[in-house]
Amino acid sequence: MTYKAWVEKELGPLSRALGFRYTPEEEIHRRLETVRQGMKQAGMEGLLCIQKMDGYYLSGTAQEAVVFVHADGRTLLMVKRELERARLESPLEHVVGFESFKDLPGLIESHSGALPGSLGLELDMLPVNDFQRIQGLFPAMRWMDASRLIREARKIKSPFEVEMMKIAGDIARKVYLEGREILKEGMTEIRFGGLMEAAAKDHGHEGLLRVRSMNYEAYTWHVLSGPNGGIVSQSDSPMGGLGLSPAFPVGASLRQMKTREPILVDFGICYHGYQVDQTRMFSLGRMNQKFLDAFRACREIHDAVLDQTRPGADCETLFRNTVELAKKLGYEDSYLGPPGLQTRFVGHGIGLELNEPPFLAERQSYPLEEGMTFAVEPKIVFPGEGAVGIENTVLVTGNGCQILTPLEQDIFEV
Amino acid sequence: MTYKAWVEKELGPLSRALGFRYTPEEEIHRRLETVRQGMKQAGMEGLLCIQKMDGYYLSGTAQEAVVFVHADGRTLLMVKRELERARLESPLEHVVGFESFKDLPGLIESHSGALPGSLGLELDMLPVNDFQRIQGLFPAMRWMDASRLIREARKIKSPFEVEMMKIAGDIARKVYLEGREILKEGMTEIRFGGLMEAAAKDHGHEGLLRVRSMNYEAYTWHVLSGPNGGIVSQSDSPMGGLGLSPAFPVGASLRQMKTREPILVDFGICYHGYQVDQTRMFSLGRMNQKFLDAFRACREIHDAVLDQTRPGADCETLFRNTVELAKKLGYEDSYLGPPGLQTRFVGHGIGLELNEPPFLAERQSYPLEEGMTFAVEPKIVFPGEGAVGIENTVLVTGNGCQILTPLEQDIFEV
Repeated sequence: MTYKAWVEKELGPLSRALGFRYTPEEEIHRRLETVRQGMKQAGMEGLLCIQKMDGYYLSGTAQEAVVFVHADGRTLLMVKRELERARLESPLEHVVGFESFKDLPGLIESHSGALPGSLGLELDMLPVNDFQRIQGLFPAMRWMDASRLIREARKIKSPFEVEMMKIAGDIARKVYLEGREILKEGMTEIRFGGLMEAAAKDHGHEGLLRVRSMNYEAYTWHVLSGPNGGIVSQSDSPMGGLGLSPAFPVGASLRQMKTREPILVDFGICYHGYQVDQTRMFSLGRMNQKFLDAFRACREIHDAVLDQTRPGADCETLFRNTVELAKKLGYEDSYLGPPGLQTRFVGHGIGLELNEPPFLAERQSYPLEEGMTFAVEPKIVFPGEGAVGIENTVLVTGNGCQILTPLEQDIFEV
Repeated sequence: MTYKAWVEKELGPLSRALGFRYTPEEEIHRRLETVRQGMKQAGMEGLLCIQKMDGYYLSGTAQEAVVFVHADGRTLLMVKRELERARLESPLEHVVGFESFKDLPGLIESHSGALPGSLGLELDMLPVNDFQRIQGLFPAMRWMDASRLIREARKIKSPFEVEMMKIAGDIARKVYLEGREILKEGMTEIRFGGLMEAAAKDHGHEGLLRVRSMNYEAYTWHVLSGPNGGIVSQSDSPMGGLGLSPAFPVGASLRQMKTREPILVDFGICYHGYQVDQTRMFSLGRMNQKFLDAFRACREIHDAVLDQTRPGADCETLFRNTVELAKKLGYEDSYLGPPGLQTRFVGHGIGLELNEPPFLAERQSYPLEEGMTFAVEPKIVFPGEGAVGIENTVLVTGNGCQILTPLEQDIFEV
């Protein structure tokens, strides 16, 4: 049997039997319609979508491909590798193969009748050298930045997307419950994180988390025990942990976990590309009172954010209110980082990427909207001692919010 | 204790006790000297190194930072987060903090006395929008592409780097031996991959692999059993496997592994940023004869590459010789992919990233040099049936090569 024949006959049933869900056709068309509206408002005639998660969003496939969207016309999915699989995964009607970027102008022209007068690209992610190569292929083109437009389209989640995130949240719940059985005194942070990761994959977790950034690397094994919770590292996060080396100086380390110390487990789960983020405290025996008190403060701050979450609530105000509340509760200096190193956000939008709008943060004054999803994660950090916190992923509903990570919120005391 | 005081006093001993190795000062200076020579040849007065692994290479720290190199002068490490940890990790003398990219021109000017007339940037990775922002901060600057220059410097590994890769190779060896105990009939591919990953982390494996690319995502759980080994997906690889969903359509799946079928395990290990790549075949009981024969052919091709590996050997010729040999052995149509989808490389340089020079591939005609490291991975793919292959990471020595992944090369029959 040829490869093409095998894929056409066997790959669909095999994939479905193993849990694959494909993005529905009407869902793809709704997304494209939203993007087209944004293009028309911006005066952008064509869009070349190259970044992988944007491409998955607009086509349903994460194969190596470029999606061409015309503001007034048809969409063309051009696939480098692998074409037959992309045809199976994407509900788009027009799917063609290409070998090199040099083929794109010809394919677009024969698909649309003519090249558009302007083209948008994801200039927030596209490297300069790639941009220059593409510019050379489309002389006299007017280039525009399409990154914001796609991010705006993606920020409101559909019922299908929320369903994927709920499944991710259910996996997160199972994994933390299993974590209670895995955790043992003397176990290293990284072993605990590794075994939780293995358990998560069993349930369909895809292993990699995704961030829209050249340098930032997301990972799941963020297990920080005792003093390691007090270490700041490398990213805009209240604490990064020790990690395994100067080359990967974040997350779990080879440190053995001890009784009575706080063990912060911040673990993202990815199901069909859709992520949820969740933090809970574990401990071997009861944590010291200082950490118990600080954890109670985190829960109070977390609950206050959820109480205020509804369409129209201002994101910067939500953040500032948490700073005020932390101050009132006596944690002004340790809220969201050690003194002098405190971060200025308490929540981040989440979906296909971990750093989507909305941001509950300083200088982010805009309203929440129904259908947005974000993670809220108040944390309190004591340098040299440890960190505590709690985190859930929530959906903004018509009149409030719904938690997508429905796990008990107490400390997981083993 | 303040955070700064704690880091200064405690973080170094804590890190070293848990296995951290820091890049030696003389090593950093040798690397900088090589880069400076390249800069002088290119007429590049200054270099702004932003990409994380390039930065780690030139400074010893992977904190969020920018390295400024002057062709004739001193190096300045500018750190956004976290400054105290970067001071601990980097042997560079001049280390300062910054809040925003707007601070960079002033810091460079006060460090060097004046701004350079030209600046190199990693334009192969730097997104367009970031480049434009940086351009706005340095008016009248002459911009140059520094990506190739840094890649060239990095392609020859030092004894320190080879030592890190040997440790990674030793971890790879241990994990495959443990894999023999982990593998059971009926286990899913992803569970096997997840448990191997957890075992690897126990030995210091950092979990993430790194590729220099906007879209390509490296991962370790590349466990392909039976027909899944015959599935091409998403990347320039002989086969990608099924994966877990259309959003992550590569690597291990939830398929249960069966007796007598080929189970290809292609697993990268990362230690202190340095990676090795290794593939071995596993099977539950004896594989069918067709696969045993094809595996023998892969070993013959692999051994032939190693026999020809020495300084001066031409990379494209090495690749072409494997194609000839595969043809002679009767695998013309299935070597490096299914018919029509065959890739055109059999080896890739490896170190801090998985896609470094040299490439043993078509249109890569240049000589191997002493100190280069690459992975060689002949594979044979039968669509609908499975794939076999073998892979090792090797160092080019003065008169041949040394295997950095010293694991027995036979099939791991369980």
